[in-house]
Amino acid sequence: MSTTQDKTKRLLKLMENDDIRELMEEIKNYHPADIAEFVKFLLPDEKKFVFSLLDTATAADVIVELDEDTRQLILQKIQSNRITEIVDDLETDDAADIIDVLPDDIAQEVLEKIDEEDAEDIQRLMRYHEESAGGIMQAELVSVSKNANISTAIEEIRAMSGEMEDIHNVFVVDKDEKLVGVLPLRKLILASPKSKIFSIMDKDPISVTADLDQEEVARIFKKYDLVAMPVVDTHERLLGRITVDDIVDIIEEEATEDIIKLTGAVDDYAWSSSVFKNASTRLPWLFASWVGGIIASVIIGMFKDTLSEAVVLAAFMPVIAGMGGNVASQSSTIVVRGIAIGSIDVKKLWQVVSREVRVGILLGVTYGVLLGIFARIFYIDVFRLWIVVGFGIFASMTIAATMGTMMPIILAKLGIDPAVASGPFVSTTTDIISILMYFTLATIIIL
Amino acid sequence: MSTTQDKTKRLLKLMENDDIRELMEEIKNYHPADIAEFVKFLLPDEKKFVFSLLDTATAADVIVELDEDTRQLILQKIQSNRITEIVDDLETDDAADIIDVLPDDIAQEVLEKIDEEDAEDIQRLMRYHEESAGGIMQAELVSVSKNANISTAIEEIRAMSGEMEDIHNVFVVDKDEKLVGVLPLRKLILASPKSKIFSIMDKDPISVTADLDQEEVARIFKKYDLVAMPVVDTHERLLGRITVDDIVDIIEEEATEDIIKLTGAVDDYAWSSSVFKNASTRLPWLFASWVGGIIASVIIGMFKDTLSEAVVLAAFMPVIAGMGGNVASQSSTIVVRGIAIGSIDVKKLWQVVSREVRVGILLGVTYGVLLGIFARIFYIDVFRLWIVVGFGIFASMTIAATMGTMMPIILAKLGIDPAVASGPFVSTTTDIISILMYFTLATIIIL
Repeated sequence: MSTTQDKTKRLLKLMENDDIRELMEEIKNYHPADIAEFVKFLLPDEKKFVFSLLDTATAADVIVELDEDTRQLILQKIQSNRITEIVDDLETDDAADIIDVLPDDIAQEVLEKIDEEDAEDIQRLMRYHEESAGGIMQAELVSVSKNANISTAIEEIRAMSGEMEDIHNVFVVDKDEKLVGVLPLRKLILASPKSKIFSIMDKDPISVTADLDQEEVARIFKKYDLVAMPVVDTHERLLGRITVDDIVDIIEEEATEDIIKLTGAVDDYAWSSSVFKNASTRLPWLFASWVGGIIASVIIGMFKDTLSEAVVLAAFMPVIAGMGGNVASQSSTIVVRGIAIGSIDVKKLWQVVSREVRVGILLGVTYGVLLGIFARIFYIDVFRLWIVVGFGIFASMTIAATMGTMMPIILAKLGIDPAVASGPFVSTTTDIISILMYFTLATIIIL
Repeated sequence: MSTTQDKTKRLLKLMENDDIRELMEEIKNYHPADIAEFVKFLLPDEKKFVFSLLDTATAADVIVELDEDTRQLILQKIQSNRITEIVDDLETDDAADIIDVLPDDIAQEVLEKIDEEDAEDIQRLMRYHEESAGGIMQAELVSVSKNANISTAIEEIRAMSGEMEDIHNVFVVDKDEKLVGVLPLRKLILASPKSKIFSIMDKDPISVTADLDQEEVARIFKKYDLVAMPVVDTHERLLGRITVDDIVDIIEEEATEDIIKLTGAVDDYAWSSSVFKNASTRLPWLFASWVGGIIASVIIGMFKDTLSEAVVLAAFMPVIAGMGGNVASQSSTIVVRGIAIGSIDVKKLWQVVSREVRVGILLGVTYGVLLGIFARIFYIDVFRLWIVVGFGIFASMTIAATMGTMMPIILAKLGIDPAVASGPFVSTTTDIISILMYFTLATIIIL
């Protein structure tokens, strides 16, 4: 198989040479994900043009693979009846995503023109929170009564197979439409056509309710190694199914969110949004940090006399604050990520704190001695000063490790997302406390 | 379905009351992942005891779900012939993972006692790099000749179904064992038993070679929404298959690695390793940062005269360096993550740089003005000084955004992992340049 890059290059070459007939021939053999990759590289007008060459089924497959910006651009440029055709061809969860970003009047028009049952399903899906099980499930699934036999299940699969990309399981319901089992296709293939479903199904299927957060849903997929999972209402009636390909995207999305939140940078659309939008999403976090810096400067101002006495003290401020900041961000990253992926056992959190504090002390002693020696050799001939510097970095690093570990744990216990709040809070507080301790110590020892 | 926590609590209660018979009854109905969860909560001796109650098949299912520490503990405590039974029951990829952590003599003994063909497969898998496609694939798969018919494929599935947890596809090979197609079970179910495989299979299946890095494999799964993918040798002969449940773990693992690397914290085993090991993995990164801090202190030392002239300049150092550090880490995080998940187009990297620099200028102007005003109101009555402070923070933030964006890009172009090197390098360099500019400006304007 040739790589996506090769494929993209070949298509771009044809595009350049205006060889549209050959381009269309080539595209026919490509996976929708590869076509989407190619479209990403084109200019806006070219995107629209290439998209117009695709038949409806391919256009539908490609549009779900496009990034949000390109998708938006194309949706703005095509006629509403072509949008209707495309939406009609999509699975309900993807259709709901598309309709969600259309202007209200066009969304209304599309919903009126597509298959009535699909329209109802789509509107039902759109009522769930975007990041809940209901928001990521699709209405398409294969279900049979537990009293049916294998042949009936096969007929049901045949009936649905035009509407669904992939079928992994048949869901089994009782007479009240309650979910009672699941039948993997492998078992279905090996059973005799006359077998009753209930005699070969897996009982007690793992399912979730529609309101469950997508992060929790992903955790369940991961834990039980699932490929598709049924979503039920509070009476255990079948509502839809979630497939693992969406879970893969969610896990990556959630991890990225955590990373970005830890530095207070920006939201999901970081890579495509405008300079102004990007700057403004970063302002609040920076503002918190600015306020912290201002407080630090007021504190330093209070120690003006100590500083005038020994100006060299200022020279060590960056290394003391910097090392504290680094240790704090290491500790809080470890804890935030550990909580997120479940590798830190919530019951044993205080063990984690105790261990991190000891790590902080060990690091603090190491760098305290190192900095003391450096100060002694290169700078200061006053014994008291290098004690201040060495002890200053030790205190800063120990406090940083403690704060960095405890802050996310406390925030998590308070029900605040530790990823979003830990970053600014920890680094700012560590800065202020480090500087306060450093100058207090200096004042006591020097004056 | 009751939650895992409920299940764990119920089992712990039975354990406490020494009601072993009831405990064994309960465990029978539980998913291996739930049993593993329960075992995690026990004391070492209890872990060993509960594990000894499990029949071989359940023990095998449970051991793959355990965290590395618990698994290691249990493997040390059980007899080698029980290990043999368990390994014999595992799929080859899981078996290879277990044998990998056994002492050499026991590993040898186990390999000699299990099914010979399995032993060969396992040893073959163990030769691949742990983080390559070969290292994560399993030998178990269903393959048929393209000239076979559907009934043959079903017989093949029946023959393999005892050895494999789940079957999603039948792989199709030609007479030279080359992979030529893939047949999803859905298609197989709907076809007539007499149909020839080649007439209904999906041609041009997506596959990878055994040496491909697991991160790249995960990207292909994600891009093409795969559930299982064949691994081939350089002659396109079928070697094994990778399933999506392993990919889910890998995506989370890789994201965690990136996060941890960005702060230079620790490796995969952060949550279980000792204080000393934990501290020592963090030392090098902190040392780079310490050297940077020392350089900064030398620079500040050079500007001692300027500082003595206006001690208040020291008060603004933390806010200037801190804001620079924050902007730099935001910018580098965005770029590192964008490259990792592919949302930043490598061809358009310089557009990203240009945008981030403009963001930096915008943020720099905002905070420059803010800090200048603050300095004017609360502190300094000398016009020249608040110009220095305002311009200092502007310069620091602009440089930080530029450095933070360019550094990971340059590292990536040089083939160095940007996640691991960006953190320390960017923050240290930003610190030094900010301070140098701040004091140079101060010296020019004040003296």
